[in-house]
Formats: sequence, C-alpha cells, structure tokens
Amino acid sequence: MATRTTQLRILAAALELFNEHGTAAVSANRIAERCGISKGNLQYHFRNKREIITAVFQQAITEMDSGWYKDHLAPTLEHMAAMYVRQLQLILKYRFFYREMADLLRQDARLRKRFADNRERRMCDLEKFMLALQGRGLMRFPSDPRRLRALVDVTWIVNENWLNYMDYHDRTVSVPAMLEGYGEILEVLRPYLCADPQQITQESYLTIERLAAQASARTAEEAPELLVV
Amino acid sequence: MATRTTQLRILAAALELFNEHGTAAVSANRIAERCGISKGNLQYHFRNKREIITAVFQQAITEMDSGWYKDHLAPTLEHMAAMYVRQLQLILKYRFFYREMADLLRQDARLRKRFADNRERRMCDLEKFMLALQGRGLMRFPSDPRRLRALVDVTWIVNENWLNYMDYHDRTVSVPAMLEGYGEILEVLRPYLCADPQQITQESYLTIERLAAQASARTAEEAPELLVV
Repeated sequence: MATRTTQLRILAAALELFNEHGTAAVSANRIAERCGISKGNLQYHFRNKREIITAVFQQAITEMDSGWYKDHLAPTLEHMAAMYVRQLQLILKYRFFYREMADLLRQDARLRKRFADNRERRMCDLEKFMLALQGRGLMRFPSDPRRLRALVDVTWIVNENWLNYMDYHDRTVSVPAMLEGYGEILEVLRPYLCADPQQITQESYLTIERLAAQASARTAEEAPELLVV
Repeated sequence: MATRTTQLRILAAALELFNEHGTAAVSANRIAERCGISKGNLQYHFRNKREIITAVFQQAITEMDSGWYKDHLAPTLEHMAAMYVRQLQLILKYRFFYREMADLLRQDARLRKRFADNRERRMCDLEKFMLALQGRGLMRFPSDPRRLRALVDVTWIVNENWLNYMDYHDRTVSVPAMLEGYGEILEVLRPYLCADPQQITQESYLTIERLAAQASARTAEEAPELLVV
C-alpha cells in the first residue's frame, strides 16, 4: 500500500477513535488495530500519538483553508452564514480537538503556534469580509477598527465553542442547534446590519439547512457516525 | 486532624496539581503525597480521583454562589463589571476545570447536570440583572426576551473561554488581558447602553483594576502561584 494511502487511513482511524473516546484513552496500538496494520508499520509513519494528533490537526487546517476562501470572496449575507456553518461542520468533524483544545495546545508549543496563526488569519479574513459587506451597503460598522475586531472575535469564540455548549446541555448537534448558534452570532452583528433582520435570519436559515443537508448526504456515504440529524 | 480540615487540604492540593499539570497527569497518590498523608487516609475521604474532581467543582459552584448574589442585587454598571471579573477570577482559580471542561463533563453525567443547572441559574440571574439595569434607565434591550437571552449567553461564553484564548495566544493573565476580555463583552452590550460608552468603559476599568489588586493581595497570602500580574 502506498505511503500516503496508509497515512490517510491511519489519520482517519485516529480521528474516529479520538472523537469517540478522547485522545487520552486511545493508544497508538489501538489506532494500528483499527487500521488493521502492525504497530511497527504505524510507527514507520508516525513516531507516536502526539505526531498523529498534530497531523490530524494539520489536516483540519488544510480543509479549513480550502473550504473557506470561496465564501470569503463573495461578500453576501448568504456567504456569511455559509462561513460560520462550514466552520461549525469542520468543528463537528474534528470534534475531539475542540473538546480538548485548551489541554492539547498547552502541552504543545508548536501546535499552539500553528493554531494561533491560523486563527489570526481567519480573523483578518473575517474583518475584510465584514468590510466588504459594508462596502456593498449591507452592514455599517463602527469606524474604530478595534471595535470591529472585537465583534468579529466574539462571533468566532461563540462559533468555536458552540458544540461544546450543546454537549454540556445534553443536546444533540441537530440543524435546530446549529440555527440557534448562528442566531446568537447574528444577535451580536444585528445592530450593524442594514437590511431587515427578519429577512436575513430567514435567508440564513435556508442556507444552514441546505449546507446541513449536503453535509448529511456526504457523511452518510463517508462516515455515518458523524451524521447531523 | 478533623475530617473536614483534611478534606479541605486534599482539595487544595488537588486544585494546585490539576492547575499545574492537568487532571490526566495527576494520580490520587500524588495528591496524597502533596498533602503529606497516606494513600489509605486519602481513600478514606475520597474513593478515587473522579470524586476529588467532583468535590473541587462543587467547591467552585459554592464559591460562585456566595460571591455572586451581592453584585446581582445592586444593578449598577460597576456591579456589572464586577460580576464578569469575579467570574473570570474564579475561572482563574479553578483553571484546570475550564481547560478540560468539555472532556470532564462528557465523562460524567452527574457533573454535567450540575454544571448545566448552575449555568442556567447564572443566565437567569444575569437576565434579571440586565432588566434591573434597564429599569434604572441604564440599558435599553430588545423587547423579545429571546434576544436578551442570546446577548447574555454570548457574553457568558466569551467570559468562560477568555482565559483559554489567552493561553492559545501565549498571553499571561494580566490586568490588561482581563480588561480586553471585558472590552469584548462591553462591545456586545454597547448598542443597548444608554449612558456614554466612553465613561462606562473607563469606570469599568477602574473596577477591574481594583478587583484585580484585591485578588492579588489575597492570593499573595494564600496561593502565590495564582498571582495575577
């Protein structure tokens, strides 16, 4: 089996196990078992569990970058909803990471730097996106750039943590739960929206439902255990 | 040594070790060692590490309740700042819990229920507090109660996760970092403030500095390792 194919299989198995049980409870051996390869073969590709965690996270960042920029280039309110929801779907896919983030990043300075850099890039993209919305007359933000940054930052903190809050309250990650999360984000942005908030909310909800349905169809094929109901 | 005194010593040692190393890396044995008691003595008080984690968390909730209600009863903007900052200081003290929250709560349905109940109580208190501010002419919120709830929820999500974000970006938990966190919370509430935002920000900052100085003085005596610089 080609090296890259084996590596991808290892990462897929690790992601599945990490999401199910958390990283602490999953050994490199167990990942090898799930892949149906020997411990030695796994070690040939990844020296230890930490290397696997880093590689899975790197995969998440690559995915984030590829899905992201298309929305960023089209400053419409529909794409705004799409950006937040795609990120939420990514978090769902790499759920273990967002659950254990504070602990994982604290233990690994390189991973922390990578996460911080990626997040900073994301914040800059979002700021530019918001200013482009403003340029098209869809939003009107405070002129102080620090205020816009704070608003964008808050929406991102809510987005990054929303699925954890669903867990805390024993709620499943359903379309209504995603709509509620985006509703809170819209509430933060609402004073700066120029269009009719009622209409925006309704349109965003259609976008979210459409994206969720697409993701469900994809997931049902590729990884039924991640299915959004 | 009286039972309660020993229990408190065990919990204090556990909190210190959990904050330093995370719960996964700390065994019940190590907690006993740090206390200078035998493993058997520790087990007489707490059957296992999970019981210790639950007890530490229960302590955090009790502390939250006792420090909270006085602010809640005085609806001024100064007390609003005080509420968020006291919660931030509590999170700092019980930092391991907020770092590992998603994982700890997922593993323990009872702890999860306790956390969710406490959080729900907190949200209701905050809503009442905001309405009392409105009653005094200091704020003007949307009439739809779901919108007020969303705003309050967002501010709390930012507050609960702020210290983790400081960690991700390699920033120390200093007074400026706390001010910045409260600045983002104020940004969410700003469109609903009736008074001059500039003045509110300045007054809140004085409150935060005063509370941080008080906490430093207390911490320097009781637990120098938690010192906010």
